Amino acid sequence: MAAPVISPEIDGLIQLLAKLPGLGPRSARRATLHLLKKGPSAMEPLARALTEAATNIKPCGVCGNLDTVDPCHICTDPRRDPAILCVVEEVADLWALERAAYKGRYHILGGVLSALDGVGPDDLNIASLIDRESRPEVSEVILAMNATVDGQTTAHYITDRLKDAGVTVTSLAHGVPMGGELDYLDDGTLTTALRARRPF
Amino acid sequence: MAAPVISPEIDGLIQLLAKLPGLGPRSARRATLHLLKKGPSAMEPLARALTEAATNIKPCGVCGNLDTVDPCHICTDPRRDPAILCVVEEVADLWALERAAYKGRYHILGGVLSALDGVGPDDLNIASLIDRESRPEVSEVILAMNATVDGQTTAHYITDRLKDAGVTVTSLAHGVPMGGELDYLDDGTLTTALRARRPF
Repeated sequence: MAAPVISPEIDGLIQLLAKLPGLGPRSARRATLHLLKKGPSAMEPLARALTEAATNIKPCGVCGNLDTVDPCHICTDPRRDPAILCVVEEVADLWALERAAYKGRYHILGGVLSALDGVGPDDLNIASLIDRESRPEVSEVILAMNATVDGQTTAHYITDRLKDAGVTVTSLAHGVPMGGELDYLDDGTLTTALRARRPF
Repeated sequence: MAAPVISPEIDGLIQLLAKLPGLGPRSARRATLHLLKKGPSAMEPLARALTEAATNIKPCGVCGNLDTVDPCHICTDPRRDPAILCVVEEVADLWALERAAYKGRYHILGGVLSALDGVGPDDLNIASLIDRESRPEVSEVILAMNATVDGQTTAHYITDRLKDAGVTVTSLAHGVPMGGELDYLDDGTLTTALRARRPF
């Protein structure tokens, strides 16, 4: 696209929106035109929300959750069970578990171990996890990593580090998803579900 | 999602991003987390770009293009042919024609006639088009509406309004798109292409 046609202000906005996951150059152009057509009443609230988030949202020093306060609301909520720590990869996973009505606390690793991407134990929040689970109030650590190779490698690594710590280490059940049809399931899931069968 | 878990600042950002075309609630959450992980260095430039666009970008009073100046750069560019006006539906169509190396000027209707959506001639920039084409320097009006029912209805309506104006009214050629395979083309396009066949 020739530079003089689209003004640099518009082009800059397109380039920035195109960096968001889920938006490519084409959909960033559409989103920009949508905003320009709606005018300041659409752009100003978004600009304000971004500025506020940039200023106020920080990772929680205890669990790694994103919030305006540190420690975050979940870490300081007295109604949440301090005995259970659920270890997840990312904040998105915490949001997902909140939708599943989990009532313990969290620990966010900030990623998974990955030899390919050069992510080692020191790049993740593992030291702070060891520190937290050593406190007397913690009795169970739930490993809720994704069911991927890297996620499970990380889970094994953490299990290993926790094995002398005197806490119960559990992991999410793997099996047939609710509403899932056996015919469409991959063999790995079905094998796991069969091995982990339970009395009906 | 329960209100206390995601802070209102984060949730507000998700809601605003989810309004963009191409982003739903799920991808808005992903985009928000991406921005929060990148931190202020990702959010502040976007906030600034939005504020600048909201402040500086205005529709051109002559053609309807979006630019920081009014009349826009295209309307005031002396290298562009003032004899040809290309009528398009939206600014996105102008951007598309710029990529096709068109060197005349534009007129943006701001939509198409649509009985279903209640869009009549007075809701579009048709009066200003009639006014522009009546100037002596304009000799040709290219109708470049989308090849949809509403687009073609609008083209017919404008042709009708211009028929006593003494300008040549043309429209984009319809036919087989470059790289198109006949077997995959819809019948309407193929019929049009056959009817409009030209000496090789």
